[in-house]
This record gives sequence, structure tokens and C-alpha cells, in this order.
Amino acid sequence: MQPTVEDVAREAGVSRQTVSNVLNAPERVRPETRERVEAAIAKLGYRPNRLAQGLRASTSRMIGYRIEPVHPHALGSIHDRFLHALADAGRAEDHHLLLYTADDAQGEVDGALALHRAGAIDALVLYGLHAGDPRPPALLANAVPFAAFGRTGDDDHPWVDVDNAAGTAAATRHLTEAGHRRIAFAGYPPGSAVGDRRAEGWRDTLAALGLPPGPDVRGEDSLAVGAEIGARLLERPDPPTAVVAATDTLAAGLLRTVRARGARLAVVGFDDTPTAAALDLSSVRQPIEAAGHAIIAALLNPPPPDGPPAARLLPPELIVRGSSTTP
Amino acid sequence: MQPTVEDVAREAGVSRQTVSNVLNAPERVRPETRERVEAAIAKLGYRPNRLAQGLRASTSRMIGYRIEPVHPHALGSIHDRFLHALADAGRAEDHHLLLYTADDAQGEVDGALALHRAGAIDALVLYGLHAGDPRPPALLANAVPFAAFGRTGDDDHPWVDVDNAAGTAAATRHLTEAGHRRIAFAGYPPGSAVGDRRAEGWRDTLAALGLPPGPDVRGEDSLAVGAEIGARLLERPDPPTAVVAATDTLAAGLLRTVRARGARLAVVGFDDTPTAAALDLSSVRQPIEAAGHAIIAALLNPPPPDGPPAARLLPPELIVRGSSTTP
Repeated sequence: MQPTVEDVAREAGVSRQTVSNVLNAPERVRPETRERVEAAIAKLGYRPNRLAQGLRASTSRMIGYRIEPVHPHALGSIHDRFLHALADAGRAEDHHLLLYTADDAQGEVDGALALHRAGAIDALVLYGLHAGDPRPPALLANAVPFAAFGRTGDDDHPWVDVDNAAGTAAATRHLTEAGHRRIAFAGYPPGSAVGDRRAEGWRDTLAALGLPPGPDVRGEDSLAVGAEIGARLLERPDPPTAVVAATDTLAAGLLRTVRARGARLAVVGFDDTPTAAALDLSSVRQPIEAAGHAIIAALLNPPPPDGPPAARLLPPELIVRGSSTTP
Repeated sequence: MQPTVEDVAREAGVSRQTVSNVLNAPERVRPETRERVEAAIAKLGYRPNRLAQGLRASTSRMIGYRIEPVHPHALGSIHDRFLHALADAGRAEDHHLLLYTADDAQGEVDGALALHRAGAIDALVLYGLHAGDPRPPALLANAVPFAAFGRTGDDDHPWVDVDNAAGTAAATRHLTEAGHRRIAFAGYPPGSAVGDRRAEGWRDTLAALGLPPGPDVRGEDSLAVGAEIGARLLERPDPPTAVVAATDTLAAGLLRTVRARGARLAVVGFDDTPTAAALDLSSVRQPIEAAGHAIIAALLNPPPPDGPPAARLLPPELIVRGSSTTP
């Protein structure tokens, strides 16, 4: 039983017209009254009907996006490419991006609800979706349309992701084809979906080829940790001859140790950040531009309402450079 | 004496209505006529009245920004940091960023005019302003409020820039304090304001200390060119012992040659891209966050209309790492 405008009016002790004003012309309502009506709307879980939403949605032609702070340790971001792809795909459909900031996931959701209620955005793009992510249920409950980059594993909304396991599988195959038989993995601590899939691609590929997995070393995603992992691998009695790293940051740290010691250890990173080219580092490149376009397409040209939401898993591409080919 | 629409019409040899069309519905005007009217507007310094601007500005609370494609050779961008700073500063003032893409500067201006006319944005932020930039006159002529990162040298609008000469001056002083006396410069070809100021900071600092300038080598901003410059410097009969590079890209190329040869040449880059940390490269860091906040402040809290437009020149900071300190 959906609550109605009458229910909200009764709960707040105001007229239907006042509720309508709060929804459509809040500046006409005194702040105390407005707060009372908004509290009633929240308490009852009232939602304006879809037709009215559709009408409003057709006006802003804006897609909301929360821009996150740049991680201080990130090695050149692929985020610029993603934003440009979203803006470019939106342009082709006569939509623009509305950027906003927030302190955390809750702030991101609150910002989206406020913007959507005000008619400033029609829909939202979420970045870096992960298992247990609190954002999808909050947006679904409030009928804010959205599409995500990444997935929770249990997604009742459009998503686009990159096949992380396929990326490390390609890196591992490339190393075995160059003759390596002891291939290690360096990744972040178990428990992150992206990190686990990257480890899986390495492990499964070796298993399929009948090769034992090399050492599997995990740590925080930083240059210092990568350098330390490099030292630990090289100091083993039976050191690996190659390593697949879950990020370019770990790979760059590994390379620093390898090159400082003049050691032989082939390294492949992940993300093909601009730093990879500067370091002559082989790396797995995510199809970020294609992902951005697919996300906008999923939002603006959704599949029929009785089918499942749009879902796209895009293959990454291995970029081979000197770090995995020079002996 | 402010010029009027009549003055513009007389100067361009057209009717008042045509001037008005150029300002409000340029698609109705033939391109040749539009150019003639825009030239007259620029020549006379005509501005549509401020009241109309203010009225329209009060509605959208959106600031437009064209996001450029990521340069394929860029070593990790500082652009992410800039966008986040703009969005964050806007949030504090209850404004949001509207991102759009365009193929070139003309497309950027056309996009801004269309968005401003439609009431979708109140104002615009320009990135990478340079001498002869066509964007400021076109926006001034059409009364689109804006503030710029960078300057043309002849700016009748708010701008914020980083003191590029101070950055290379700090790099040069740092090298002289470490005992270097033959200090080269590697930069892009003369004629770009940013590049010229970076060369100037190096040259003037050496002159002030009574030191002769080392070789001054220029080329396209790429890793390959940096590596080649490194080879040319090291093969000189009297090679420099240090080099100030105008970008981290050139510096990374230089370092590649230096490290491959095991040579001794101290290197300092510019921009403190994420790659600089990965390469242990000393670099000049631009205060991008402060620049973003200053730009939004200039737009939203402008100085009194009878004074000059807001202008801020921010000092960069030298980040010292191993590339300029290990012997």
C-alpha cells in the first residue's frame, strides 16, 4: 500500500496543497512547515508518482556524479578518462554531467536525493560499486534512476564492469608464453571483490596450464609495499622469475627494487596508468572509455521494463612493454 | 563612457536587432555578420548590462566547465585534482559543476553560450588560458560571466594563475645550493607563455647568482624527446651536472637516459604528477586545490564592479626527492 498525498497531509497536519507546494515550489512554504512535511514524507516513505517524475526528468537532462578526492598514492588516475567518457557519451544524447562532492557514501546518496528532488538531475552514475555497497538500496528505495561502474554481485540495476580476472589471466598467459614457470602474484589483502578477481585470474590460469602457483603476497596498495614485496620475493631461496601485480602502484614499487638491484624479475601491472608508460611497465588496460559510454547507454536507453537490467562485462587489454620482455 | 548597442551596430554596419541577435540567438545570424559584430564588440569593449546578467545568474546555481580529453602522453594528470577542487569549492557556496565536452575552443564557447542562454549555467570556468586565447573575448561579448585558470597577459576578467617562473627559480636555487654550477634547461619550444615563464625563472635565477646559463634545449613534451635531450646533454664535451625540466614528462624521459647509462645528472621536473613520486623525481607542485577554490571565489564573490577584476598569482612548491639529491 503506497502512501498518498492525503496520508502525508494528515501526518503533517497540513493541507494537500501545502504538501504539493513542498514538493513543487518549496520556496512558497515556511521553513518550519516544510520541515514538518518533509519529516512526514520520510516517515511514511511517500513517493511522488512515476508520471510526475517522468515529466520532471524530461526537463533537466542532467546526470549526477560524485567526484571523489584523488587518492594521494594513486599513480595517475584513470578517472579523468572515465569522466571524459561519461561527458562525451552524454553529449551525444544531449545530456550533461552534474558534478558534486561528498564526504562519504551516505553524503553521496543524500546529495543525489536532494538534487533529484529539486529536479536538478534525472539520474546518477555510481563509481566503484562493491559487495555490500550501501548506495544501490538507498537509491532504489527513493526511485532515483542510476547505473553503476562495478557490481555488488547481486545487482537489480544497470551495471558495467571490467572483467578483472580476464586481465590477470592475459598477463599470466603472456608470462608463460615467454617461458616463465614460477610466477608470483602481488595484490591487496583478500576480501575486496576486485582484488579477489584479479588473484583468481592468475591462479586459475596457472592451474589450467598445470603450473603450480608461485608465492601469493598481499599488502596495502602503495609504492613502499610494492618495493618491500619485491625484496621479499627476490630473497626467497627459490625466487619467482615473474610477478603479476594487481595494480600499477605495486608494480612500480616492485620495479624499483628490481632495477635498484639489477635483478631479473618480469613484472606486469594493472590499469595502464600514465606512469606505466614512463616506467616501461607492461600493464592491463581497462576499457574505461567503452565503460563510460556503456553506462550512459544503460541509463538513457534502458532495456524493456519487464526484462533484466542492462549488464555489461567488458574485456581489458594487455599492453606489453619492456618490464616483461627484456631478459 | 560605456559603449552602447548603438555604437556596436554603427561600428559593424548592421542594425541594433542584428547586434541583439548575435548576443541572444547567434544561430539566426550569418557567420560573416556574426564575426563582424563580434569584432566590433571586442574593439569597443561593449558589455551587455549587468542587471540582466545578475537576474539570470540567480536561477541555475550551476557553473559550466569543458572537460578536455586526456592527453595520451600526459604522465598522470593534475586535472582530477583541479576538478575536485572546483566541485568542492562550489559545494560550499551551494553551486554545482556542469561538465560538457567540445572538440575545440570554438566548440567550448558555443557550448557555453548555448548553456548560458538556456539558463543551465550561470557562469563558466576556463582552463589553460593563454595569450591570444579566443575564448575570453567571445564570452565577454556575450556577457557570460567567467573566471580563468591561467592568463592571457591582457585580462579584463577574473583569473588565477600559478607563478611558473617562481617554480623553476626554486628548482634552480635548490640545485645551486647542492653545489651545481652547470645547470641546463629542457623545455617546450619558445612562444608558449607557460613555457617561456618556466625558462625565465631558470635563466633569471642563474643570472642573479652570477652563473652562466647552461644549455637551453627545447622540444615537444614527450618521454622520447626527454630521453633524447638527456643523451644530447650527456654527450656534450662539457656536460651540465643538473637540469631543470619544464614538465615531468621531459624529466621522466631525461631520467630514463640517465639511469640507463648510470650517468650523474640531477633532474627536477614540473607538476609533481603521480609519476614523479614513482620515479623518485623532484618536482615543482602547483597549488591546484587553492587555485580551484580561488577561481570559484572570484566567480561567486566578485570584487566591487568599479574595481579591477579579481586576480591571484599563487606560489608553487618544490618537492625534493632522490633525482636531485643522490650524488
